[in-house]
Amino acid sequence: MDVLLCGDLDAGEALAWQQALSQALPELRWHDVAQARARPEAISAALVANPPPGSLQGLPRLGLIQSLWAGVDRLLADPTLPAGVPLARMVDPAMSQAMAETALWATLALQRDFFVYARQQRQGRWQQHPQRRADEWPVLVLGQGAMGGTAARALQAAGFPVQAWSRGAGAAALQQALPRARVLINLLPLTPATSGILNAALFNALPRGAALVNLARGGHLVEADLLTALADGRLSHAVLDVFGHEPLPPAHPFWRHERITVLPHVAAQTDLRSAAAVAAANLRALRDRQPLRHLVERGRGY
Amino acid sequence: MDVLLCGDLDAGEALAWQQALSQALPELRWHDVAQARARPEAISAALVANPPPGSLQGLPRLGLIQSLWAGVDRLLADPTLPAGVPLARMVDPAMSQAMAETALWATLALQRDFFVYARQQRQGRWQQHPQRRADEWPVLVLGQGAMGGTAARALQAAGFPVQAWSRGAGAAALQQALPRARVLINLLPLTPATSGILNAALFNALPRGAALVNLARGGHLVEADLLTALADGRLSHAVLDVFGHEPLPPAHPFWRHERITVLPHVAAQTDLRSAAAVAAANLRALRDRQPLRHLVERGRGY
Repeated sequence: MDVLLCGDLDAGEALAWQQALSQALPELRWHDVAQARARPEAISAALVANPPPGSLQGLPRLGLIQSLWAGVDRLLADPTLPAGVPLARMVDPAMSQAMAETALWATLALQRDFFVYARQQRQGRWQQHPQRRADEWPVLVLGQGAMGGTAARALQAAGFPVQAWSRGAGAAALQQALPRARVLINLLPLTPATSGILNAALFNALPRGAALVNLARGGHLVEADLLTALADGRLSHAVLDVFGHEPLPPAHPFWRHERITVLPHVAAQTDLRSAAAVAAANLRALRDRQPLRHLVERGRGY
Repeated sequence: MDVLLCGDLDAGEALAWQQALSQALPELRWHDVAQARARPEAISAALVANPPPGSLQGLPRLGLIQSLWAGVDRLLADPTLPAGVPLARMVDPAMSQAMAETALWATLALQRDFFVYARQQRQGRWQQHPQRRADEWPVLVLGQGAMGGTAARALQAAGFPVQAWSRGAGAAALQQALPRARVLINLLPLTPATSGILNAALFNALPRGAALVNLARGGHLVEADLLTALADGRLSHAVLDVFGHEPLPPAHPFWRHERITVLPHVAAQTDLRSAAAVAAANLRALRDRQPLRHLVERGRGY
């Protein structure tokens, strides 16, 4: 089976993917973009992480595009993406677990004022604040996919009252959920329908002093609205892992904002050990003409 | 029933305790130290939080000293503490839950490098580090009381391999557990046997780059040994909630140490709602001549 591997991978990462997948499926033969150009009719699957535009065109027998990343918004925005080929997201259980850990860490830090105490340490200030109980600290999780679901269960297990929302539940359900949420965690896919959903109107529907945790995509957030909401006390804090431009530019005000925690897109990284098994299962299904898993509905955007 | 209430409580706290307890036990009559001095034979119980030395002496009918705090090391160090009177610790389920939250937050932050990313944010540095899995990040919890037990269960539920140790398990068991622990969480009672237990010998038995979380008492830690272990890379980070002198003095090097997280003794505060129920149950037991709960063995120190 001839496979094209391409995209934002350094040589070490590409080699690690090849080794892990070849161990699961020894029959794999690997090609880069130039090699695939030389023998386009051989390629039956592509494993991609932000592939260069055009790299998936002109492959007549391509039967599967398997993303190595969970988010496919950049892939879908590429007009050269071949239309008829099944496209699968990476749904890596270790990545969902890592995302749940980040959501839990951020929620505990917000509930228990640990970001406030970190600020106080920098000021040399010893001051205790009233302790809040988890069962009185409702969390609203946007997104009910593998990551949103795993995060919601972890938060619930830790004692937080959790509400979950996804686009299918409708705008009215969101308006009803927002006024109770002390913490809003975004794990939605980025689609035209969810772009800019974290905006002033949404912040204004939260209780005063609520916190925002954006672990999905920078495109979900209207940055100017966040700065305004933090300035006027509507929001007390934001934990941001994703940004409109990554790496976040050195002059960006988020870096120095004392109520914004900046993470360098590390809320959940793919774990090659479990992700390779997920990709291998789809390649095996392609070979054996079995149903492919985690397919993207292109019209929906995820 | 006449009760003496005294110690490190401001007027608002004292009133809140009185109200919560009087609601549970309307027959209570409240006395401060001066009032108890005036009618010492009336007092049948004392509720104390670091009582002034001598305040519990000369009360001929005192049948219970109920600490409002979990730690009784300072109380036991008071030579004026009357010898024959039952002494109870506060074992507040909400406090154990809060302690477990702090232990979980600190462990997640250490496993996932969130303290490192906070440092990078202050430097404006965008840099990703390899993601570690919880099931490959063993945690050793010292102390198997209400707090140690609750913390161990919460860590286990979050996916961390947890070892638990208490003094009864012996020094050999500790030596065996230390080399595996990526995170060491101290929740021991402070007694002559555990004072200074967090020292160079213990740090040297941990794997290189392990982290320390001290949520128990400042007296457990040999501060100079911690600074040495951080300087030579033996330990990568310390989260400290408790200190030899509190508040931590402004000139203390811990405040400015970039690998030490200073918390102002907030890892677990008593929650008056649940703690008042615990204290009321013991007062009721005293009145009804039923067994008292959470009694301290003075020889053992907790």
